[in-house]
Amino acid sequence: MLKIAIDAMGGDFGPEPIMEGLILALRNNNTFTAIAVGDENQLKPLIPNSLANRIEILHTTDVIKMSDSATDALKRKESTIFKAIELVKEGQADAIVSAGHSGASMSLATLRIGRIKGVSRPAIATLMPTSENQNTLVMDVGANVDCEAKNLFEFAVMGQVYAQDVLQLDEPLVGLLSNGEEESKGNEVTKEAFKLISKIPNFAGNVEGSDVFKGTVDVVICDGFIGNILLKTAEGVADTIGKIIKKNLKRSLISIAGAVLMRKVFKNLKVKVDYAEYGGAPLLGVKSPVIIAHGKSNPKAIQNAIFQAINSASSNLNNDIEEKLKHYSL
Amino acid sequence: MLKIAIDAMGGDFGPEPIMEGLILALRNNNTFTAIAVGDENQLKPLIPNSLANRIEILHTTDVIKMSDSATDALKRKESTIFKAIELVKEGQADAIVSAGHSGASMSLATLRIGRIKGVSRPAIATLMPTSENQNTLVMDVGANVDCEAKNLFEFAVMGQVYAQDVLQLDEPLVGLLSNGEEESKGNEVTKEAFKLISKIPNFAGNVEGSDVFKGTVDVVICDGFIGNILLKTAEGVADTIGKIIKKNLKRSLISIAGAVLMRKVFKNLKVKVDYAEYGGAPLLGVKSPVIIAHGKSNPKAIQNAIFQAINSASSNLNNDIEEKLKHYSL
Repeated sequence: MLKIAIDAMGGDFGPEPIMEGLILALRNNNTFTAIAVGDENQLKPLIPNSLANRIEILHTTDVIKMSDSATDALKRKESTIFKAIELVKEGQADAIVSAGHSGASMSLATLRIGRIKGVSRPAIATLMPTSENQNTLVMDVGANVDCEAKNLFEFAVMGQVYAQDVLQLDEPLVGLLSNGEEESKGNEVTKEAFKLISKIPNFAGNVEGSDVFKGTVDVVICDGFIGNILLKTAEGVADTIGKIIKKNLKRSLISIAGAVLMRKVFKNLKVKVDYAEYGGAPLLGVKSPVIIAHGKSNPKAIQNAIFQAINSASSNLNNDIEEKLKHYSL
Repeated sequence: MLKIAIDAMGGDFGPEPIMEGLILALRNNNTFTAIAVGDENQLKPLIPNSLANRIEILHTTDVIKMSDSATDALKRKESTIFKAIELVKEGQADAIVSAGHSGASMSLATLRIGRIKGVSRPAIATLMPTSENQNTLVMDVGANVDCEAKNLFEFAVMGQVYAQDVLQLDEPLVGLLSNGEEESKGNEVTKEAFKLISKIPNFAGNVEGSDVFKGTVDVVICDGFIGNILLKTAEGVADTIGKIIKKNLKRSLISIAGAVLMRKVFKNLKVKVDYAEYGGAPLLGVKSPVIIAHGKSNPKAIQNAIFQAINSASSNLNNDIEEKLKHYSL
C-alpha cells in the first residue's frame, strides 16, 4: 500500500482545504494511506473517524510562509515541508504533496531527496489546457531561469518519459519552444538544444507559443524564466477576456435566456482554463515523486495532486528517466 | 505636407487591401500625400480620380514574398520594399508603411536608413490590449533574439519616448518582463538590465506576463525571443477561449436572445483582441519612422498604420531618443 506524505499546513488557506482534499482522495481511492504533517491540534478535528486508520499525523507547528525566503528552508528542520520531505527521504513515505512555498519545496526536495543519476537540474512540469480534449505538458515552469542547452535536453527526456509513464500517452511528441517553427529560429541556447534534442525519438522540432494551446505536441520545453512568463501571460489573457465578456454582458443583458446561456459557457470555460483541475505540478528529476500544488488549491485540486503523486509513485518514471538519459548520452 | 511611402504590394492579399486602406486614410486625414510603390498597372485602377493628385505611384514589379529569405533583401534593389525605403533614405518621403516581409523591412531599414546615434539595435514595438481602456506597448517583438542588458536598456528608453511623444502618455511607466515582481527575480541578463534601467525615471521594476494585460505599466521590455513567445501565447489563448466558447454555444444554443447577446459580446471582444485595430508595429531606433503592418492587414489596419506613421513623423521621437540615450549614458 502506498503512503503519501502531505504538508498539511503550507497552503494559503491553512489546513482545511488540504485536509478536505486528502479526505476526498482517500474516499475515492483506497489503495493508499497518508501521513499529514502539521499541528495535531488543528488537524485531528478535521479527520472523520471512518478515516482515522488511514491518516497518521506527524506533529509539528513551524510553517514556511509564502513571504519567507527559500534559502532558509534547509535550516527550518521543524517546518512541515522539511519534515514531509524527510519522510520520503527516509523511506517512510513514497511521495509527497505540498501546497506550500514552492521554492522551498523544490530546493529541499533537490538537496534532501537528491537528483536522479544523469539529471543536472530538476524541473517543474505543468499541464496547460487546449481547445481539444487534451493537455500540453510545459516544462520548466520552475526556478531554472538560466539554462544551458544540456538542461533543456534533460527536460525534454524527463517530460517525454513523464508523458509516457504517468500521463499514459503513446509515443508523446516533444517540441522546443522558440520564436518560429523553422529549424533556423531560436536564440543561441535553443539552437544548441535543438541539436541535442534531435537525438530523441518523436521530437517535433521548434514550436511557438500558440502551439501550447493548440495541442500540436504533447510536451513543450523551455527554461524556467520563459515558462513562468508563458504561464502568467496565459493567465493574464484568460483573465482579461473574462473581464471583457463580463463588462459587455452587464452592458447588454437583454434577456434571462442570454444570462442562462452565458452561465453555462462560463462554467465550461472555467473547467478548461482552471489550472487547479489538473492538481499540481510534478517536480521531475528528484529520486521520489514530489507534487507541488498551487498555494490557493481547493480540495479538488489537492485530491488531483494526490492522485498525481500516486500515479507517479506507481509508475516506472524515475527508473525510465535514468535509463533514457544514460542511453542518449552514449 | 508629410509624404508617406507605402509598399503597396508586400501584403499577403496583394495590393487591394493596402490601397483601400491608403484611400481611407487620405479621406480621413488631409495633412499628407502618399507614394505607393508597386506595379502601376495594378495600382492605377485602384485609385479614385478624386485622390489622384495625392497619390504618386513609383513603378516596380518585384515583390519579396513572405517565404523569401530576408538575407536577399539587400540584393533585390527593384523590390517594392527596397524602393520604398530608398524614398525615405533619400528624403523623398518622411515615413514608410509596409505590410510585407517584416524581416526584410527591418534589415533594409536598419542598413539603408541607418540607426539613431546611441542605438545598438532597433526593435519592434507592439500594442497589446488590456481589460481597461488602455494598451500596453511591448518591445522587442522583433528579431533581436539574443540581447544583452544594454540592448534592453535602450529598448526601455526608446519605448518610453515613443509612449510619451507618439502615444501622448504623461510620464509613461516602464516595466521589465521577468519571472516575478521582486528585484531579486530574473535571469542573468534581466538582472543586469534592471540596474541599468533603474537610471531612467518612472521605472516600475519587474513585471510579470499577466501585467501586460492588466495595464500595470505602459511599456513592457523584453528580448525579441520572449516577445515573440508572449505574442503567440496571447494569440493562442485568445483563440482557444474563442473556440471553447463557440463549441459550448453550439451545444447550448437555447434561444435567439442568447445568440443576439453573444454576437454583441463577440464583436466587442474582437475589437479588444484584434491586433489589426492598432495598425502596425513601429520599428524604433532607425532614423525615419518605419511602421511594420501585419501581412494580413485589412484596410482599417493599413489606415491605422498610416496614422501611426504620420504621428511618428510629426513628433520629436527620434531627436528625443537620441537626446535621452546621450543623457543617460553620461
